[in-house]
Amino acid sequence: MSTEGQVITCKAAVAWEPNKPLVIEDVQVAPPQAGEVRIKILFTALCHTDAYTWSGKDPEGLFPCILGHEAAGIVESVGEGVTEVQPGDHVIPCYQAECRECKFCKSGKTNLCGKVRGATGAGVMMNDRKSRFSINGKPIYHFMGTSTFSQYTVVHDVSVAKIDPQAPLDKVCLLGCGVPTGLGAVWNTAKVEPGSIVAVFGLGTVGLAVAEGAKAAGASRVIGIDIDPKKFDRAKNFGVTEFVNPKDHDKPIQQVLVDLTDGGVDYSFECIGNVSVMRAALECCHKGWGTSVIVGVAASGQEISTRPFQLVTGRVWKGTAFGGFKSRSQVPWLVDKYMKKVNLM
Amino acid sequence: MSTEGQVITCKAAVAWEPNKPLVIEDVQVAPPQAGEVRIKILFTALCHTDAYTWSGKDPEGLFPCILGHEAAGIVESVGEGVTEVQPGDHVIPCYQAECRECKFCKSGKTNLCGKVRGATGAGVMMNDRKSRFSINGKPIYHFMGTSTFSQYTVVHDVSVAKIDPQAPLDKVCLLGCGVPTGLGAVWNTAKVEPGSIVAVFGLGTVGLAVAEGAKAAGASRVIGIDIDPKKFDRAKNFGVTEFVNPKDHDKPIQQVLVDLTDGGVDYSFECIGNVSVMRAALECCHKGWGTSVIVGVAASGQEISTRPFQLVTGRVWKGTAFGGFKSRSQVPWLVDKYMKKVNLM
Repeated sequence: MSTEGQVITCKAAVAWEPNKPLVIEDVQVAPPQAGEVRIKILFTALCHTDAYTWSGKDPEGLFPCILGHEAAGIVESVGEGVTEVQPGDHVIPCYQAECRECKFCKSGKTNLCGKVRGATGAGVMMNDRKSRFSINGKPIYHFMGTSTFSQYTVVHDVSVAKIDPQAPLDKVCLLGCGVPTGLGAVWNTAKVEPGSIVAVFGLGTVGLAVAEGAKAAGASRVIGIDIDPKKFDRAKNFGVTEFVNPKDHDKPIQQVLVDLTDGGVDYSFECIGNVSVMRAALECCHKGWGTSVIVGVAASGQEISTRPFQLVTGRVWKGTAFGGFKSRSQVPWLVDKYMKKVNLM
Repeated sequence: MSTEGQVITCKAAVAWEPNKPLVIEDVQVAPPQAGEVRIKILFTALCHTDAYTWSGKDPEGLFPCILGHEAAGIVESVGEGVTEVQPGDHVIPCYQAECRECKFCKSGKTNLCGKVRGATGAGVMMNDRKSRFSINGKPIYHFMGTSTFSQYTVVHDVSVAKIDPQAPLDKVCLLGCGVPTGLGAVWNTAKVEPGSIVAVFGLGTVGLAVAEGAKAAGASRVIGIDIDPKKFDRAKNFGVTEFVNPKDHDKPIQQVLVDLTDGGVDYSFECIGNVSVMRAALECCHKGWGTSVIVGVAASGQEISTRPFQLVTGRVWKGTAFGGFKSRSQVPWLVDKYMKKVNLM
C-alpha cells in the first residue's frame, strides 16, 4: 500500500530536552509539501555536532527535536514541483543545501547556499514555517534540515543529493558530513599542492579524511597531532606519515612543528573545535605562505586570537563548512569516486 | 674628488633615545663592503613605522639609530661583487629585500625575502654584523636596512631598486613604502575583481593607496571609513565613493557596513593598526567569500580575535607587508607606471 500523501507513523529517536537520553518514540511524519522530499532513512551516523546540540551547549538548539544529519536512504514520496528526485531514488540528505539560484550559489565562490537557511535554523520547513514531525499533535523540531534519527524524514528538495543506486548506503552515508568535510578542506578550501607539508590537528573521522585528502593531493609529509597515541596506527592507513603528541613536549606545539619542518608547515587543519588548537594551527604555518583552515566547530561564544603579525607576515586564516563541496552537485561525484574504487592514496 | 672607498662625514637625524627629539649630527658613513651599496639620499618621507620605533613602543627598536625607510637617491659607490647597480644610478632603498635565491624568493608565493632579515633586524650589515654609521667612533644602529634620515646611507644590494633616472625623486620616494603597500594589498594580496564592494578602514596615505588600487581594479563601491570627516573630500580624489564615520552610528561599524551592502563587503582593508578595527574589518565581510586584509601594524603584544564561526562561514583573514610586491623587481615597474602617467583610475 502506497504511503504517498499519508501521514507515516514510524520510530524516531527524540531529544526531548538537552543532555537527556534520546527516547525512541512513535512519530507522525507528515507528507512532503511543495518542494519537499520524504525519505526513508536506512542508515545514519552520529556526528559530534549532533552531540553538541544534544548537550545543550548550542544556543541555537531547539527542543524537542530529532537530531541526525549524516545518513542515506530512499525517497518515499515527493511534494509538488519536485523534479530532480522521485520515489525510489537513493539519496543522501544534505544539511548544506544547494539551490543554484541564491546569491551564494550564483557567486561561484562558496557552497553556503542560503535558500532554506532561515527555516532549517528555526527547526521548521520553509513552505509553512512548520515542522513535519509530531507526536500526538505536538510538533517536534527538525534539526539541520535533515533529522535523520528517524525512519522517515522530510527535507527540502534543495537538500537532497541523488546518488548511484548501486552504492552501499551503510558506507556512503558518511559522505553526508565528516568525510567530505575533511577531503574538501584540503581540495577546495586549502587547495593543497603536491609536495606540501601538512599538519592535521585531531585524528578523528574528519582529521583522517583530511589526511587522506592531503595524501591524494600529493603532500610530501602529513603530520598528525593528537593527544591519544593509540590513534596513530590507524592514521597511518589514511596517509599520516608522522605523529606528534603535544604531551611529549614542553614547548608549545606550534614551536615543535616549526622546528620539525624548517620554519613551519605549508597547510594546517584544525579538526577538533578547540580555539587554542586553532591558534596553534595557524602559528605552526610557514611565514610567507602557510595557510590554516579551521574545520572543527568551537563551542558557542569562544573566540580565536593571535598576533596580527602572524597574518601580516603572510599566513592565511580560513575556515570551511562541508569542505566547500556543493552538496547536490558534488556528493554524487564523491559517491561515484567511492564506487569506482578510485584509490585516493 | 671621488668619495669612493672613503668614509663620508655628512648630516643625519639621529635618534639617540626613544621618544626624544631627533638630533641632526655629523655622522661618519663607512664605505660599502662586499654586496653593499652606498646611496646619497635626496628625498625621504616619514612613515608611521619610523614614529612607532622612535616612540619606544617597538620592543625590537635599537638606539641610537638612524630612522627612515621611504626615500630615493643616487648610488655613490658600490662594494665588491655588486653588479646590478653602479654609481650614478637612481634608486629607491627597499626595507623589504629581494635576493631571488632564498626559499622565500624561490617559493613564488611571497615577497618576504629572508636573506638579510637577521642583520637588518639587529641594526647591522650582514657582512660583518656591524654598522656603517658612527659618530666619533661610536656605532649608530641601522634601521630596517635603510636608515634614510641621513644624507648618505649604506644598504645591502638586495635592498636596492634601480629606477628610471628621469623619475622625480621627490615624488617616487613614496614608492618605497606606503603607496605600494596599499596598491599591492589590493592587487597582490586580496586580488580584488571588477565589480567588487571594498571597505577601507583609515584614510591616511596607505588607505588612500588602497582606494586608488581598488578603483583601478574596477571596484564598484569603495567605502571609506574614518573618524575624521575632513578626510572624505580628499579621499574622493583617490576613488572613495562613500564615506562612513563610525561616530555617526550607535551600532558596531561592522553591522553598519553589513546593512549598507546587503550582507557585507567583498574585500576589506585595515590601514590603521588598531586590533579592534581589524576585527570589525573581518566581520563586515560577506559570508561565503569576504576577504579581509590587515595592512596596518598593531602595537607590540596586541592581539586580534573573532569567533571562529566567522571563518568557518567563508571569510578569509590575511595580511600584507609591502603589499606583496617583490621590491627590486616591482618597484621599478611602479615607477614606470607613474612616469607613463598611467591613469590608475
